Amino acid sequence: METVSTNRSHGGVQGVYKHRSSETGTEMTFSVFVPDHAEGAKLPVLWYLSGLTCTHANVTEKGEFRAACAEHGVIFVAPDTSPRGDDVPDDEGYDFGKGAGFYVDATQEPWAQHFRMRSYIETELPALIAAHFPVDMERQGITGHSMGGHGALTIALRNAGRFRSVSAFAPIVSPLACPWGDKALTGYIGADRAAWREYDACALIEDGARVPDLLVDQGMADGFLEEQLRTHLLSEACEKAGQPATIRMQEGYDHSYYFISTFMGEHVAWHAERLTR
Amino acid sequence: METVSTNRSHGGVQGVYKHRSSETGTEMTFSVFVPDHAEGAKLPVLWYLSGLTCTHANVTEKGEFRAACAEHGVIFVAPDTSPRGDDVPDDEGYDFGKGAGFYVDATQEPWAQHFRMRSYIETELPALIAAHFPVDMERQGITGHSMGGHGALTIALRNAGRFRSVSAFAPIVSPLACPWGDKALTGYIGADRAAWREYDACALIEDGARVPDLLVDQGMADGFLEEQLRTHLLSEACEKAGQPATIRMQEGYDHSYYFISTFMGEHVAWHAERLTR
Repeated sequence: METVSTNRSHGGVQGVYKHRSSETGTEMTFSVFVPDHAEGAKLPVLWYLSGLTCTHANVTEKGEFRAACAEHGVIFVAPDTSPRGDDVPDDEGYDFGKGAGFYVDATQEPWAQHFRMRSYIETELPALIAAHFPVDMERQGITGHSMGGHGALTIALRNAGRFRSVSAFAPIVSPLACPWGDKALTGYIGADRAAWREYDACALIEDGARVPDLLVDQGMADGFLEEQLRTHLLSEACEKAGQPATIRMQEGYDHSYYFISTFMGEHVAWHAERLTR
Repeated sequence: METVSTNRSHGGVQGVYKHRSSETGTEMTFSVFVPDHAEGAKLPVLWYLSGLTCTHANVTEKGEFRAACAEHGVIFVAPDTSPRGDDVPDDEGYDFGKGAGFYVDATQEPWAQHFRMRSYIETELPALIAAHFPVDMERQGITGHSMGGHGALTIALRNAGRFRSVSAFAPIVSPLACPWGDKALTGYIGADRAAWREYDACALIEDGARVPDLLVDQGMADGFLEEQLRTHLLSEACEKAGQPATIRMQEGYDHSYYFISTFMGEHVAWHAERLTR
């Protein structure tokens, strides 16, 4: 692991790091904020998975998470959204290929070799984080935005017991039921839609997966709400399955970091309450 | 005035606007955050002047001011740092020409026509803001970063009584005594250094100008501290002149928005205390 940069911020250290990933076969960059802490202390960790077109940098610069993470003593990890590099295949659209890994392990060509974001986020990166940062891996939370909200929900639902807290900002709740999901999962996983269910939060809940509880904020002026995000499908799946969930529709808010940063402090506090008790 | 974008954020509206400036002879872009407020209310306004290479966008995206401005009910205005456009002269350096207006009215060619940032910030933009936003112009504060800290200090010192509160992040405190100032003021104002004194915070204080009080934060790991910013010159000028000032040297902090955003909340609260009492 190589340090790209470190900056003192809000009493802690905001770092950017890169490493050679065996899962993606590429160099991967990520950011970690470590708040001020007592020597030798192990802190809870909150994973943040970013949305389409983003890298680690968007939330690191615009997410406004550091004040709350410093206050609550939570480490914040922001990975990239896909493999990068000249030898990685890409698509002309912003919603597939680079910047759009969808947190799946691709099985279709030409994607299968590099697009292994599920294994990267679920297995490889946690081991690296545990080895290099003062994290208590018994106290993990996960959140994300849009495609990253989909990633957070599905990774938490598939890994029962690993995450004490789960939330999302404007998540894609059902790739089975929206154009972004249809394009991405057809491309990465293939036409057999039964194989998509492990990458669909609503289907996972329908199939019996559960998380302790769930906080979702969704802007009502989000231009992707009706066609792509379809929050009501998650509300219905949770209600039908008895999955506890707080899903808040926020009037006037769109899909941008102006929305995310507004509710970031509340999400960090919500995770911290569950990670530090 | 034309609206470029508006986004709901922290309960208020973050807008970006542009207009044709008669001072610079160009189109100028700026951002304004208006917190939630009672209908018909007039709010205090905090001006933020940005540093070298920046536009309105840097602080708007990375400044982390909205939570505090929403809490305290303060409007936040962030102008650009220079005229822009193909017909505006420029320099190869990042520290002169576009992005580096230094908040002066240039007298030298080829700069004199467009580089009128002093008059733009002191006169033209305030009239536009007063006409289009719910501001109480009797309650103005001003702050800024680096070159913009220089701008905030000198504008406040030259306009006695206009600003109830003045602060700065890592300001250039004396263009007369640093390479950035030497290059910029020679280029914009000419070789007569006596003419620079109205653009030098330390010289203005030495010559009798005063502000009610002053808050400055300066990172001790700031790579520009020793050669360009030279905070001790401001401390000495204030002490000698009896100008009240709180100048805080912050260990480990650099010149970036990771530093600014750390102390932004405290600055906004400090201004709000003086603007709302």
